[in-house]
Amino acid sequence: MKLNTSLSIKEIAQIINAEIIGDETQIVTGINEIHMVSKGDLTFVDHPKYYEKALKSKASYVIINCKVDCPDGKVLLYSEDPFRDYNILTRKFSAFQPAYKFVSDTAIIGENTVIQPGAFIGNNVNIGNNCLIHANVSIYDNCIIGNNVIIHSGTVIGGDAFYFKRRPEGYDKMHSCGNVIIEDNVEIGACCTVDKGVSGDTIIGKGTKMDNHIQIGHDTVIGKNCLFASQVGVAGVVTVEDDVILWGQVGVQKDLTIGKGAIVLGQSGIPKSIEGGKTYFGSPVQEAREKMKELAIVKSLPKIIREMRRYFEEEK
Amino acid sequence: MKLNTSLSIKEIAQIINAEIIGDETQIVTGINEIHMVSKGDLTFVDHPKYYEKALKSKASYVIINCKVDCPDGKVLLYSEDPFRDYNILTRKFSAFQPAYKFVSDTAIIGENTVIQPGAFIGNNVNIGNNCLIHANVSIYDNCIIGNNVIIHSGTVIGGDAFYFKRRPEGYDKMHSCGNVIIEDNVEIGACCTVDKGVSGDTIIGKGTKMDNHIQIGHDTVIGKNCLFASQVGVAGVVTVEDDVILWGQVGVQKDLTIGKGAIVLGQSGIPKSIEGGKTYFGSPVQEAREKMKELAIVKSLPKIIREMRRYFEEEK
Amino acid sequence: MKLNTSLSIKEIAQIINAEIIGDETQIVTGINEIHMVSKGDLTFVDHPKYYEKALKSKASYVIINCKVDCPDGKVLLYSEDPFRDYNILTRKFSAFQPAYKFVSDTAIIGENTVIQPGAFIGNNVNIGNNCLIHANVSIYDNCIIGNNVIIHSGTVIGGDAFYFKRRPEGYDKMHSCGNVIIEDNVEIGACCTVDKGVSGDTIIGKGTKMDNHIQIGHDTVIGKNCLFASQVGVAGVVTVEDDVILWGQVGVQKDLTIGKGAIVLGQSGIPKSIEGGKTYFGSPVQEAREKMKELAIVKSLPKIIREMRRYFEEEK
Repeated sequence: MKLNTSLSIKEIAQIINAEIIGDETQIVTGINEIHMVSKGDLTFVDHPKYYEKALKSKASYVIINCKVDCPDGKVLLYSEDPFRDYNILTRKFSAFQPAYKFVSDTAIIGENTVIQPGAFIGNNVNIGNNCLIHANVSIYDNCIIGNNVIIHSGTVIGGDAFYFKRRPEGYDKMHSCGNVIIEDNVEIGACCTVDKGVSGDTIIGKGTKMDNHIQIGHDTVIGKNCLFASQVGVAGVVTVEDDVILWGQVGVQKDLTIGKGAIVLGQSGIPKSIEGGKTYFGSPVQEAREKMKELAIVKSLPKIIREMRRYFEEEK
Repeated sequence: MKLNTSLSIKEIAQIINAEIIGDETQIVTGINEIHMVSKGDLTFVDHPKYYEKALKSKASYVIINCKVDCPDGKVLLYSEDPFRDYNILTRKFSAFQPAYKFVSDTAIIGENTVIQPGAFIGNNVNIGNNCLIHANVSIYDNCIIGNNVIIHSGTVIGGDAFYFKRRPEGYDKMHSCGNVIIEDNVEIGACCTVDKGVSGDTIIGKGTKMDNHIQIGHDTVIGKNCLFASQVGVAGVVTVEDDVILWGQVGVQKDLTIGKGAIVLGQSGIPKSIEGGKTYFGSPVQEAREKMKELAIVKSLPKIIREMRRYFEEEK
Repeated sequence: MKLNTSLSIKEIAQIINAEIIGDETQIVTGINEIHMVSKGDLTFVDHPKYYEKALKSKASYVIINCKVDCPDGKVLLYSEDPFRDYNILTRKFSAFQPAYKFVSDTAIIGENTVIQPGAFIGNNVNIGNNCLIHANVSIYDNCIIGNNVIIHSGTVIGGDAFYFKRRPEGYDKMHSCGNVIIEDNVEIGACCTVDKGVSGDTIIGKGTKMDNHIQIGHDTVIGKNCLFASQVGVAGVVTVEDDVILWGQVGVQKDLTIGKGAIVLGQSGIPKSIEGGKTYFGSPVQEAREKMKELAIVKSLPKIIREMRRYFEEEK
């Protein structure tokens, strides 16, 4: 999330009541998670495993729960609970604004775009030209939709990331301050959900077509000209390269990559990255021809075992 | 379902034109299915397999299709079709009322609760404080929502149970007269469905968080601080204890229990009760490490069989 | 799609700028895909594999991308891109009409039918008597709903077919000009989707009951008194005969038949036609008792292999 204000790190530190280690006068230009940071950004780290990554990242400012040495050119904010304090800041700078109309006055709707009855278009949503937003679609605040996009009824664009930290007293929610970007010529079926990014953006690439009941998790980036059949579920922080085809009910776990042109057959489950240009099947997936061989062998097991038993008995 | 009227069993019998065996003057205080009854309740039984259960239950009144001896302290209503007559009564006392506005005049909405455009809040719905009900959510009549609850767009709370009796002429629907109760601090994603109970209540426990596209069947009770990932489906009359984690696309069959703290990996299918504190995988599920071993063995079958064949051939 | 106009094949040819081979004066009465044609219809074919089928079909007019001999009684329209030109015609004769109200002025709503708030009823929709259309349902233009039908919230009837042709520059969408017909006494749960047919109609047979989150693809025909549990997905051009039961999360691939009275257990995947009257399980499905045996054998593999190893070692 880029900040539109020009707050110094000192002013930011005061909001969360954190101790500053370093130059207090520098200006904070963005707030992002560790994998999304650039110069001028504030990030957070609360687990020793990631301290080094955070301290060596491009972030200029790090909220941290340990009094480590401050690297050159960085400013540290010492906090007992960096997750909580990061959330306080992101919520402050991207607070939820209630809407009072189906189509917000601050939404921008392009030429020849049709918004059907009951479609909700939130604050600052930007929709391009020649789009068709069917009845009872819901598009949350700030989402960006390109030209020639069709979104079918019941679909929800820009819901919150499913991202929680377990506390002794229950789950603490990470505030989503990223966005959803839907590029030109995309079609999204009915009753689909595309969650917004936590720091970055969830992106549906140009020309991609999705059937009904599809789930796209936060910060996931889908390439161009992909085809997803009904009831596919893709978790958060996934990269799907161009020209990928996922058939019905495929499930994709978080934080992995599906290579360009991969084809995944129905009901498959993808637990880790798979190479492009191949066809896959199974849960967990294998290359389809391997999986088919395996299925054939399993099917012939009763026969194989019968033969084996006969052999053993003859031996005896 | 509790009755707000003070009807005698004689008056009830007249509605369904049933013959009474026992004291006609007693007052009926509730109408419930056999597993939900307490003293003063009317229930029904239409299969000899369950006669004894019904006659020994806490129900004071039983609609039954066989002229059995009336146990002490009970009143029997003799009916040729107890399912039909039970349904007539539940429909009479909890008839569907059309709504004329997005937010019913009889709904109670707590302080600081935001209802976004297009959200439907049915008759007698009760929503607590500091809730956020996103655009195009539908909450059917009588549902009860606690404090600090977030419900995302497209989600439907309180739809009818999927509960039918096969008749020669087609399916006969059991009328749902239970409720949905969503406790404090619950978050429910977009395009989810939580069906109402048939007799009792479908309950989502305090602090539980659900992703998008989740199905929760009638009379199912979900514990506290559970985490369900996208596209999970839980059938009716299931008990999910506290701190259970179900990953994406898990399916749970009806009438079983998932023990406290169980973790079930993606795409698993749960056909019967599983113990808490363990990790599961597969359809049907096994303990995950067992299933992983099994998958490894199946993967190595071609090699094992090749070796076996070679061995047999050498023997010959 | 039947045409309400009386255009000659010459006038049709002019719209798409195609060369006519045959009698130019004949009247076109319908436009349909090859599997749906009758006398008077125009169809298209763009792959040599299907030329013969098209030329021998009942269609009177064929858009074709090869200058073949014109069979007796037919008229050919020569086009470089029959898919594109067929689409131009279907879009011309069934163009999308924006709606301005939740319930279109051209919709016909039967007696005692209740339309809850936020339900969208498109142009020329026809709904029978005694129906209950819950809040935030979306019914696209032209759909036909029988009597005593219940449709739960969030459900979308009549969305476009998921049917695309790959072009070098991206996917080209086949325009859906078929319809959805929902027969009497059907109940459809919440957040379901039933896509319209491309040429013909998607049909849900009398008395069929569907749970929540169900997907029914284009041109699929579901028989009478079927029961589909939650999260079932049925692709396009499927025939489901009467009395079929599909349990939760079953996936059905396109262009196949499920025989009368088949029962398919949860999470199964159906890649090709299956006979009626049997119970199935697995992905891909087998008869359930075979699949159960197979699962038992796989489970006992570690033991079998241990025994085998012991035997081999003893031999050595």
